Amino acid sequence: MTATQFDFAPLLPAGLPAPAAKWTGLAKYSFVGGNNDPDQVPVEGLIGAVNAVLRREGQTLATYGLASGPQGYRPLREFLTKKLKRDAGIDCTADDILIVSGSLQALDLVNATLLSRGDTVIIEQDTYQGAINRLTRLGVNIVGIPLDDQGMRMDALEKALAGLKGKGITPKYIYTIPTVQNPTATIMPESRRTELLKLSQQYGVPIFEDDCYADLVWDGKRPPALYAMSKAGGVIHIGSFSKSIAPALRVGFIVAPWAILSRMLALKTDAGSGALEQMVLAEYCTPHFAEHVPKLTRGLRAKLDTLMEALNEQFGTSAEFEDPKGGIFLWVKLPDHVDTLKLYQAALAAGVAINPGPEWSTDKAYAGSRLRLCFASPSHEQIREGVALLAEVCRREFGVPARIANVEKQVRA
Amino acid sequence: MTATQFDFAPLLPAGLPAPAAKWTGLAKYSFVGGNNDPDQVPVEGLIGAVNAVLRREGQTLATYGLASGPQGYRPLREFLTKKLKRDAGIDCTADDILIVSGSLQALDLVNATLLSRGDTVIIEQDTYQGAINRLTRLGVNIVGIPLDDQGMRMDALEKALAGLKGKGITPKYIYTIPTVQNPTATIMPESRRTELLKLSQQYGVPIFEDDCYADLVWDGKRPPALYAMSKAGGVIHIGSFSKSIAPALRVGFIVAPWAILSRMLALKTDAGSGALEQMVLAEYCTPHFAEHVPKLTRGLRAKLDTLMEALNEQFGTSAEFEDPKGGIFLWVKLPDHVDTLKLYQAALAAGVAINPGPEWSTDKAYAGSRLRLCFASPSHEQIREGVALLAEVCRREFGVPARIANVEKQVRA
Repeated sequence: MTATQFDFAPLLPAGLPAPAAKWTGLAKYSFVGGNNDPDQVPVEGLIGAVNAVLRREGQTLATYGLASGPQGYRPLREFLTKKLKRDAGIDCTADDILIVSGSLQALDLVNATLLSRGDTVIIEQDTYQGAINRLTRLGVNIVGIPLDDQGMRMDALEKALAGLKGKGITPKYIYTIPTVQNPTATIMPESRRTELLKLSQQYGVPIFEDDCYADLVWDGKRPPALYAMSKAGGVIHIGSFSKSIAPALRVGFIVAPWAILSRMLALKTDAGSGALEQMVLAEYCTPHFAEHVPKLTRGLRAKLDTLMEALNEQFGTSAEFEDPKGGIFLWVKLPDHVDTLKLYQAALAAGVAINPGPEWSTDKAYAGSRLRLCFASPSHEQIREGVALLAEVCRREFGVPARIANVEKQVRA
Repeated sequence: MTATQFDFAPLLPAGLPAPAAKWTGLAKYSFVGGNNDPDQVPVEGLIGAVNAVLRREGQTLATYGLASGPQGYRPLREFLTKKLKRDAGIDCTADDILIVSGSLQALDLVNATLLSRGDTVIIEQDTYQGAINRLTRLGVNIVGIPLDDQGMRMDALEKALAGLKGKGITPKYIYTIPTVQNPTATIMPESRRTELLKLSQQYGVPIFEDDCYADLVWDGKRPPALYAMSKAGGVIHIGSFSKSIAPALRVGFIVAPWAILSRMLALKTDAGSGALEQMVLAEYCTPHFAEHVPKLTRGLRAKLDTLMEALNEQFGTSAEFEDPKGGIFLWVKLPDHVDTLKLYQAALAAGVAINPGPEWSTDKAYAGSRLRLCFASPSHEQIREGVALLAEVCRREFGVPARIANVEKQVRA
């Protein structure tokens, strides 16, 4: 009696990504995703803000873009001009800012404005998975530049730019996360930023500066943004409230010269980003942002300490990492023979979610024994238990870490 | 001393839309956009809802997708299953629903899942401008099917499908707004829906059902959704809270069989739609939606009456229109020699914003003397004043309406 089911398959174009799997919930020990610390969401402050702003301006929700037009809620843009000036040295006006639905929409808009299939872009060799995936889907040639403890290496960048120029190729942009790089957590010092801007100008290649983690620096001090340092205006700067307030509020922003911002705005055909989230952020952040962030980063730093301690205890010398100056993730090197793509599968089966290195790098071999661990979301206890379980799985699958680490821990305890 | 400004122009790919103009504010008399009645935003109800939900679940904002995964806030999907069952006859579960950032993201996801450059789609001849613009940008061949007072004409659809089949072309979908069609405000009766489903099945072309105005029917009664009537599952159904609650909350939804929903979900790489807006909608709508909507539609109906009265008074027989059964817009025919693209420019200069017909139709000649007037957002007074001003501009530019209409009005007064 059932009718023949309609078959969509013959209608699907080539090149679609694989269908999504049904969601089965978060792993018990989740070290993935840019999730934040639930205890640090300023719930009471957000409640106060939303009451005030809805009572004052709730009726404006009847209009797309509120009374602020397509660039986003004006009080939020006004807050950003002050914040960006104070923290990142950026001089801009509300008209230079486009509010977007999370910095992921910023990535999409920048890409849609500048890229065609077959174009070339330069990115950091180890970088945000979502950036790599987007570029791969767009059919763009990706040139990855290796990093050191100060971020993207300028010698390698210059070599790449010269090599491309020799082949008549002008890359469409240089994508960098200069302030708390994802996943390496490096912060590019001001001197190297100057070098980067010089190369950008010299080769006529704009810089795409992703500053979405820049608020999370332990000592609260960061170098000026590339956007602030650029005299020629060849920088597109993006940021987000996901890491500083709450990721589920999908609010990010783009700062760029009008010549290019107006192109992105023309492509933002979504009738505006969510207004209530913009309103509550503006109302909360204007008085509270500067006091909230140091409290947040102290909590994150404490979780990072727990994570590094747990890794030292459980993995001993098998896990190598630097002590990051900020952020929510640790980039960990395991012994060369550990394949983190395989470790990822085995760990997930045991209830531990990690980001395998190859998904966060253009150099799959280099990143093959590396992994990214996000520490903001799990509790201190979950961090300790999760790392212990990860070590157990890794030992079972790859023979490292040796049991000695655990014994040492017991001796110390 | 100023450095040479970086020039983005050589980097822009071909085919970008024109840059956006700087926003200069809403027109004094604005009859455009899907804006709603500011007095009908349930501000107090939303405040109550946001307090309750943030106090109970605010900490979950620390996690992308809250605790609900990538398909959206589960309580909102649960509300939708009940609402869709009651209002549209749709039997579905929360797993069949994907929450999106307004129904515009639904359009983008459906298009990205099914369309390639050069494909063919069938749409209603007069239809939503945003749908036409998207298809044009995607390089898709658009076949427009004329409408009558019952919506899309089935004789014309059958002819188009047969003609395309004769050329070996299978259109990717039939896009329809069957319930309060935009801009004609027609409601397709159940019998014609049955015919449409039969043609869809016969030709193997899925139906893309846009039900975003379907809540705004004066008598509260609507035919079952095509999705509900389809036995074969060849329908993708989308809807929105923009018209029923508030457009600046960017929350819409897709209901579709998992075979195609899983493809759209794989393309939704935005880390979830805004969570706070989903939370407040679920909290508000679950107890209040059914009582809010009739109140809203009574207010809209009253504004429509004011608009039709004002048009009769100011334009007399020069303005022809049907009395719509729901919605927020009126599709108006002026005398043949009136060019509404020119009228649009002149009216805007005088402070009156209208939607010129050619932007809302695939048949530019047919729609050349037509316009769309949205009546939800302006006050009764603004509607009367705006229509009087529009008549004045139209008379100046095109010699119609004749002055008699005004005189008649004075005599009656």
